[in-house]
Amino acid sequence: MVDICLLGSGGMYPLLNRHLTSMILKYNGKNILIDCGEGTQMCLRESKFKFKNIDIICFTHFHADHIAGLPGLLLTINNSQKTTPLVIIGPKGIKDIVKGLSVIVHGLLYDIQFIEIESSKESFLFDDIQINTIEVEHTINCYGYSINIKRNPKFDIDKAIKNNIPQKFWSKLQKSEEVKYQEFLYTPSMVLCKERKGLKISYFTDCRPNQDLIDFVSNSDLLIAEGMYGDDEKLEQAKKHMHMIFSESATIAKKSNSKELWLTHFSPAMKNPNDYIEFATNIFKNSKIGYDLLFKNLNFEE
Amino acid sequence: MVDICLLGSGGMYPLLNRHLTSMILKYNGKNILIDCGEGTQMCLRESKFKFKNIDIICFTHFHADHIAGLPGLLLTINNSQKTTPLVIIGPKGIKDIVKGLSVIVHGLLYDIQFIEIESSKESFLFDDIQINTIEVEHTINCYGYSINIKRNPKFDIDKAIKNNIPQKFWSKLQKSEEVKYQEFLYTPSMVLCKERKGLKISYFTDCRPNQDLIDFVSNSDLLIAEGMYGDDEKLEQAKKHMHMIFSESATIAKKSNSKELWLTHFSPAMKNPNDYIEFATNIFKNSKIGYDLLFKNLNFEE
Repeated sequence: MVDICLLGSGGMYPLLNRHLTSMILKYNGKNILIDCGEGTQMCLRESKFKFKNIDIICFTHFHADHIAGLPGLLLTINNSQKTTPLVIIGPKGIKDIVKGLSVIVHGLLYDIQFIEIESSKESFLFDDIQINTIEVEHTINCYGYSINIKRNPKFDIDKAIKNNIPQKFWSKLQKSEEVKYQEFLYTPSMVLCKERKGLKISYFTDCRPNQDLIDFVSNSDLLIAEGMYGDDEKLEQAKKHMHMIFSESATIAKKSNSKELWLTHFSPAMKNPNDYIEFATNIFKNSKIGYDLLFKNLNFEE
Repeated sequence: MVDICLLGSGGMYPLLNRHLTSMILKYNGKNILIDCGEGTQMCLRESKFKFKNIDIICFTHFHADHIAGLPGLLLTINNSQKTTPLVIIGPKGIKDIVKGLSVIVHGLLYDIQFIEIESSKESFLFDDIQINTIEVEHTINCYGYSINIKRNPKFDIDKAIKNNIPQKFWSKLQKSEEVKYQEFLYTPSMVLCKERKGLKISYFTDCRPNQDLIDFVSNSDLLIAEGMYGDDEKLEQAKKHMHMIFSESATIAKKSNSKELWLTHFSPAMKNPNDYIEFATNIFKNSKIGYDLLFKNLNFEE
């Protein structure tokens, strides 16, 4: 139902065997990429996702390891013959940053529409996908994202008949639209079953933990989170550089009542993040060490 | 004596198993990089060359596959604690291009000195390394490079004694400096043996062949050259997009009396360039298919 792929899993600079952190999500034909460091297009090409289908690119912040791959990606998307607009969401200034990087990008066949995040919490709706952002604590302006996939309630024929809803309005009401007809106002709730739980995928890197962040990612079905340092002994280093250790991200996963945690954005100095997995699993059992091209398919609950 | 590494061997866009074309050369402590597409820093990290030691970066042209890796590389060089200046050589406009890409580059500890190529043929001297450039035929302003390593003549004691050169001037004269003393002018030729052959390494991609280019790369010890298409049947495509087929580069290697040819800058559509090697070797026997991290050490002739 929802395809998710961690394209890269590294932080700071790219390695041949660990590309820079980036994730892509696909739902109902819409493809959303978060972050695009140098080399993201290489991993994307190896994944099951298509350049042409990328609709939205979200940026957490403007450090090069999260955005330097954009000019190359814009050109590769262009070679895929995409003609529909591309939406780029990012911190204030995103338009100028992309303009600068685009000094080597010419002849795009598609438009770029920019959305600048203006305040500490924002929400953007694209059909049945809601993208929420939260400002996080880093050395520069930086945001976490959660992508909420809404699930439409089932249509209840008995309810529609009982409420005397003319059949010609059923389709509109099912699509959550209201219908005014003569003196009557027909509302979706007159034909629909109760709300159904959707899916929530959250992603943050480069930041320090706080209660706002825990609340923001609450009840995530999948939480993809900062894992710059593994060992608890690196806490002071993490604080100094405004990153997190595994146990801090695991604590956020636990306190937020999330279902699954993928750690990512590993320091290049950490050769084998699996050596430190217990710092996470001791706190939150369903913690996994992310790796390039790690893929998951999430389905709505029955 | 001269270390040369083809860092990547691909054109157009980077692949996980074939990074974008770029080469690095080291002689006498000086490191020169030519081209820097997305991912070049990943290959450089795997090579025996050091980020801190890069002195000069040369760009053939401003297509993204030759320059998009620059902002990441500038930052990674910075993390290596380089403090000496970095020289960047490129087509006219290079300063503005780097300025645009550097919108995500902050806090560099080293200075960047720009050299814009102003005319169709230029020459830049860095100690005993001469970098020559030639304008080539591509869709945008584009240059080929040759790096000429000068070799100092041997000191001839018998000659120095025979010419009555005071011993205190030997060292200066050996370094090719003239010495004026009283009414005498002492010249290097009074103490040195005859000129010795140096080494010449040439590099071009993205262009069509012509006589100027053949003359420019004449007598190269190593010629690293455009190999966008393998099969002779791709000639029309090569002409249309201003690239070359293997046999054209091999013809340049032969006509220029070069010693060895490395083909590079392969089209991503060409899965296995080795399938087409005979299109080159039939014309120039010492043709090799370049690959990422292909390394060679060249020594002066005895």
